[in-house]
Amino acid sequence: MLGTVGAAGPASSPTPSPPAPPAIKSMADLLAATKPTDWRPLDPENTLYVDLAAGRVVIELAPAFAPNHVANVKALAREGYFDGLAIIRSQDNYVVQWGDPNGDDAKKKKPIQKAKATLPAEFDRAMAPDLPFSPLPDGDVYAPDVGLSGGFPAARDPKSGRIWLAHCYGMLGAGRDNDAASGGGTELYVVIGHSPRHLDRNVTLLGRVVSGMELLSVQPRGPAPMGFYDKPELQTPIKKIRVAADVPPAQRTSLEVLRTDTPAFATLVDIRRTRREEWFLNPVGRIELCNVPIPVRPVTALKAP
Amino acid sequence: MLGTVGAAGPASSPTPSPPAPPAIKSMADLLAATKPTDWRPLDPENTLYVDLAAGRVVIELAPAFAPNHVANVKALAREGYFDGLAIIRSQDNYVVQWGDPNGDDAKKKKPIQKAKATLPAEFDRAMAPDLPFSPLPDGDVYAPDVGLSGGFPAARDPKSGRIWLAHCYGMLGAGRDNDAASGGGTELYVVIGHSPRHLDRNVTLLGRVVSGMELLSVQPRGPAPMGFYDKPELQTPIKKIRVAADVPPAQRTSLEVLRTDTPAFATLVDIRRTRREEWFLNPVGRIELCNVPIPVRPVTALKAP
Repeated sequence: MLGTVGAAGPASSPTPSPPAPPAIKSMADLLAATKPTDWRPLDPENTLYVDLAAGRVVIELAPAFAPNHVANVKALAREGYFDGLAIIRSQDNYVVQWGDPNGDDAKKKKPIQKAKATLPAEFDRAMAPDLPFSPLPDGDVYAPDVGLSGGFPAARDPKSGRIWLAHCYGMLGAGRDNDAASGGGTELYVVIGHSPRHLDRNVTLLGRVVSGMELLSVQPRGPAPMGFYDKPELQTPIKKIRVAADVPPAQRTSLEVLRTDTPAFATLVDIRRTRREEWFLNPVGRIELCNVPIPVRPVTALKAP
Repeated sequence: MLGTVGAAGPASSPTPSPPAPPAIKSMADLLAATKPTDWRPLDPENTLYVDLAAGRVVIELAPAFAPNHVANVKALAREGYFDGLAIIRSQDNYVVQWGDPNGDDAKKKKPIQKAKATLPAEFDRAMAPDLPFSPLPDGDVYAPDVGLSGGFPAARDPKSGRIWLAHCYGMLGAGRDNDAASGGGTELYVVIGHSPRHLDRNVTLLGRVVSGMELLSVQPRGPAPMGFYDKPELQTPIKKIRVAADVPPAQRTSLEVLRTDTPAFATLVDIRRTRREEWFLNPVGRIELCNVPIPVRPVTALKAP
């Protein structure tokens, strides 16, 4: 319990860096005060566009955590596997999932050309000096240690030396059956409710929605068990899924993400922990991993005079 | 941090009661094994029906925590205040909110008859022997102590003797302006994303959605700042909001809730913590407050042979 954490020492002072300047009271203030170098553009080679009739969902992939799944999902996208498939599941307070509506029918299912149908799990990986990790010292119910790694919420266990992505809102995972090696990326899901952190290290996470989340989260919930749509007309078609690098530059959605290894980001975490806006009457002084915002903005903002 | 919590003592063994019988592997198993007395019907006098064109949202009110807000919202419902108002805000990963679209226009806003326009805040209350509290010993980032109280997620601070409702998914709150006493229930919101626990003790919570949550969570996100709808045609009308006791019995939605102060509920928490379903390969052995399910079912289930 938190009282115990505080009494034990380090977590009693959760601020890892000097507090934010008094003039910075809100996330808007902080973002206005950032320097261009506090931001990094998305890498088109590790960005996925999910195009629906309603608009585009942009996903940043996480090759540092799931290199094989990222490579396979890119291969699936590049052979057009996802084009014409559909959102087949929307379970309230849990996930939206897309894939082949006929995936369970050997005769009807869409064939895979060069990509792999399944892959060994990538539930976690070894901690490494070259893998960034900005710790969040506020504690966590599910893991010994949590923080941000390259723009993704992550957790780690220094005793075992393992690190993994965390199932926060908007995270992208590869659905699987009971066998650990039954996933691979042909069915993908995005978290749309209270973060189901009990899924951590039980499914391979491979990315995060950075734009267009509101197109997924409002999908009507499916009436069948686990939120599956029991009628094809309830499904939302996937027009296409492409790797951003394959899309002509003029058709790309150019975004940049606030670097999570910068003083600016540490300041952001501090102001979100201490909530200096006038509206907050009883700021709690702590923040949980999945409540830490990871700001994204159009690249054009950088170029404004 | 959690490692410290475990090392410190009590939280190293988070199960407060004997573990679940081995035959019970899932929530479905547990629910099938419950006795009728493990359930309690909703009290029609403290149940709110929010009727939309798409269906009914059922809310259990929490008079033990916010007696004045509950009384006022019931008074507002009984004078027909909400009927014909609208959902005016849907902010992704945050809240859906309803109220008077003309609330800021003194000439156009709907008059209140007998109920109160504003009320002093009920952010928290004193702990008391007659207020049930089933502690959840898994720890929490935001509060010294968390658990379930009468079917609601709650947090408390034994040092100060205060207890409060927690902003988990589906909780109902009374929107307010900067002044603590500027709420009162004319504008109500429901949490639709990762639980914004930093709002705890900053807004009065007064209930929980127990049915129809999927009607609120899919409301298209509003394009204006904070998810407000900037055009009236984007709003979803509220047909009416009524206290269940005022609705003819044949038109009521009769639900019952698994009691949170029973051994059955403790077993449920244990199986959700240890995840015995075959699918889980690495059960974490811990559970966070807002991931604890609080089951609800039609009362007819009780009467089945």
